[in-house]
This record gives sequence, C-alpha cells and structure tokens, in this order.
Amino acid sequence: MRVRNKPWAMDKLQSYPQYVLSSPEQYKGKWNEVFVKNQPLHIEIGTGKGRFITGMAKANPHINYIGIELNENVIVTALDLLIEENLPNLRLMNVNANDLGDIFEKGEVDQVYLNFSDPWPKTRHAKRRLTYKSFLKVYEGILKDRGEIHFKTDNQGLFEYSLMSFSEYGLLLKYVSLDLHNSDFEGNIMTEYEEKFSSKGSRIYRCEVQYR
Amino acid sequence: MRVRNKPWAMDKLQSYPQYVLSSPEQYKGKWNEVFVKNQPLHIEIGTGKGRFITGMAKANPHINYIGIELNENVIVTALDLLIEENLPNLRLMNVNANDLGDIFEKGEVDQVYLNFSDPWPKTRHAKRRLTYKSFLKVYEGILKDRGEIHFKTDNQGLFEYSLMSFSEYGLLLKYVSLDLHNSDFEGNIMTEYEEKFSSKGSRIYRCEVQYR
Ligand SMILES: C[S@@+](CC[C@H](N)C(=O)[O-])C[C@H]1O[C@@H](n2cnc3c(N)ncnc32)[C@H](O)[C@@H]1O
Ligand SMILES: C[S@@+](CC[C@H](N)C(=O)[O-])C[C@H]1O[C@@H](n2cnc3c(N)ncnc32)[C@H](O)[C@@H]1O
Repeated sequence: MRVRNKPWAMDKLQSYPQYVLSSPEQYKGKWNEVFVKNQPLHIEIGTGKGRFITGMAKANPHINYIGIELNENVIVTALDLLIEENLPNLRLMNVNANDLGDIFEKGEVDQVYLNFSDPWPKTRHAKRRLTYKSFLKVYEGILKDRGEIHFKTDNQGLFEYSLMSFSEYGLLLKYVSLDLHNSDFEGNIMTEYEEKFSSKGSRIYRCEVQYR
Repeated sequence: MRVRNKPWAMDKLQSYPQYVLSSPEQYKGKWNEVFVKNQPLHIEIGTGKGRFITGMAKANPHINYIGIELNENVIVTALDLLIEENLPNLRLMNVNANDLGDIFEKGEVDQVYLNFSDPWPKTRHAKRRLTYKSFLKVYEGILKDRGEIHFKTDNQGLFEYSLMSFSEYGLLLKYVSLDLHNSDFEGNIMTEYEEKFSSKGSRIYRCEVQYR
C-alpha cells in the first residue's frame, strides 16, 4: 500500500505522549510501571493503522499491549483510534523493531505479534524480513522464557520462508493454519491488510511458535 | 479410494520374489548386497500402485529404491509396472511401516518418502498417521544420521499436523512448498493420488525435513 506523506504526523504523535511513548528506552526494566495495571505485555511489530492491536486491547483487558510501528504516516491513524477508544491497556511506539533490545529487558515481553509483515520477496532482501534470524534473536532477547511469536500473513512465500526460518532457529511450531478463515480458530481479529486481502479471496496463513 | 479385493494378489506377489522381496528381515544389515549396485537407498512408505517410485527409479539410476506397501491389492499394480520396466534399482515389499526396524539396520536407509499418506482426520486416530511421533521414531531407527523425509499431500489438515509433529520431534524443516504445482520445484514425479487430486484443482503441499 502506498502511504501518503503527512508532514504533520510527527508533531501529532508528539502531542499525545500519554499514548505514543517517546524515548521508550527510559522504561527499560520498568515496564511493569508504565501501564495502569501490572499484567502480561504483548507487542505487535509493524502495527500499521492499529486495527488489530486496538481490537485485541478491547477484547483482552487483562493484557497490556504496545503497537510498534516505524512509519509515522500510518501510526497516526492508530493514534486516532486510540484517542477515540482511550484504552488503559494500549500504548504505541514509533520505533524500529531493530531497537527493541534497547527498550525492553529480557523477559519483559510475554508475546510478539507479527501481522502481514513486508514480504521482501527478493532473496537478497531476506535480512529485512521480520522473521529473519537476526530479528528472531532480537525477540528472544526481550521475550520471557518459552515466549511465543504469533504470525499471520497472506503471503505464501513469506510464510514458507518463515516456517523454515523458525525451524532453523529451533523454535517449536505449536499451531499452524494454512487457511485461517476456513479453520476452527476462534476470536480472530482482522488487521487492515487481512481485511483487504481476504476480501479479494486470498488465503490467510497463521502460526504460533515458541522459544525452547 | 476403494480398492477391489483381488484374491489372487498374494499368489502373484509370491511368484515374483526377484521383485517383491519376501521375508525381508533376512537382509537386515546386508542391504548393500541386495541390489545390483551398492548405492544410496531411498524408500517410499505407502507406495500404492507404484507410479512415483517407478518414475523415481527410472529417473535416478544411481539410487536404489524400495516401494513399501501394506495392501496386496494395490501393490500388485506396482508389481505389474516393475515387470514391464524391469528396473535393476527398484524392489517392492509388502510389509507394514511399523516393522521397518526389523528389516533395516540404523543407517541403511538414506531417505524416506511419504506421499499422500492416509490422513486419519479424527484426533483419536492421530497415532495411525505416518507422521505421528512413533513412526518418526521408526524412521529415525533406520535412517542414516541427518537422513531426510520428503513428504507430499493434498490434505491440508494432515500437512498442518505433520509440520507440528516434525517440529515437536525436533526435525529441521529444510524446504516447504504450500503450492507445489505452482512453485519452482523441478523434477516432480506425480503419484496416483497427486494426479487425481491436482486434476480436480487441489493444492499439493510438500516439505523436506531432516533429523538433527
Ligand atoms: C504490510 S504492513 C502491515 C500492517 C498491519 N500489520 C496490517 O496487517 O494491516 C507492514 C508494516 O510494518 C512496518 N514495519 C516494517 N519494518 C518495520 C520495523 N523494522 N519496525 C517497525 N515496523 C516495521 C511497516 O512500516 C508497515 O506499516
Ligand atoms: C492414500 S494411499 C496413497 C498411495 C500413493 N502413495 C499415492 O500417492 O498415490 C496410502 C497408502 O498407504 C498405505 N499404507 C498405510 N499405512 C501403511 C503402513 N503402516 N505401512 C505400509 N503402507 C501403508 C495404504 O495401504 C495406501 O495404499
């Protein structure tokens, strides 16, 4: 999806520091103090316009969520949703997944969501995929022991690659669906991309993997 | 597929002992003496009417093959193919996969093929699936170190289950295709079931896993 440049986006993000955490490194080791309630923390990486993470935060008040997104032009839309909903258990962060090790101590995150991550189909761009081993190492460095990654995508090539990358890294494949919308998986919350691609008839792939 | 009962099948198999190995336990530890040439040995479990294994044996004369099939009513058709082709590097065995540990010494088999194995969709029948952990243990007991299983199926549920079963057993997922006939995989040889289901538009799933 082409995203329009919004020159005012950065200013808007900064004017809602209660929702969009700035300088999140300051909370490293202290994440249990950031939210109203001290409860498990799930993060979504590449949260886009925030539909999924907002839906999850509403559906699961006993879990804290952070939506992490690099691109200020899309995360502003997630901010609009959050302003509207004013959820005590949801925050946003405009940072790069690469830097998560500076932001969270090992064990502070209970679960990672990756939804419709950019596929980077060319082999020479494999390192940019959010399921490449260097990213799996970043997640390992912030997740609790036996922490999980939950991953959805419509992209067959990325899903195939990711299954192999997870396996090579030694992760346990706990759940896999090769056609999520025709499966018995309950409580699915759609992302923007999921809505768009499934309405065009694309299959959605989903898996849950666990560090061991 | 319903298979017609052929009361003469057993007699026919026994009258071609050069093709259908009887009492194969006698070769345990001596498989390098059975074939004309001493070269890698690949086996297919549940070989059905033999289309795949015959095609593989023709295409790869530098590899020895054994087609293993429980049901005498289908393996007789594989025998007909073998009589016609008279391939020095292909033999058949009318035995149960459960018994392979009595037939091969650890390391005598280089690769296992599973094609369109019976799906046994009910959870209470999971133990019968040829990718259930007890079977993975049988294969481990006859394969060389870092030996591989190559698996194809049209059955989504069986493929999902098998990916999880392989992962739980600790196998490395080296290759996966979620749509074999639209992939760049080369040299695919179709089985009877593959022909039938792909001509009806079913997707074919394929993976290669390795013991580690
Ligand atoms: C294809 S979009 C999917 C958005 C949303 N998850 C959905 O399913 O609708 C992928 C998003 O990931 C973001 N992204 C890519 N690499 C990232 C990184 N290293 N750190 C944070 N976000 C990233 C992109 O900016 C983009 O918004
Ligand atoms: C669905 S058919 C597929 C046949 C063939 N591989 C194909 O793709 O056309 C599965 C075959 O596996 C055989 N089979 C099932 N369990 C077996 C076992 N434990 N040992 C040997 N063969 C078995 C069945 O008799 C049947 O012929």
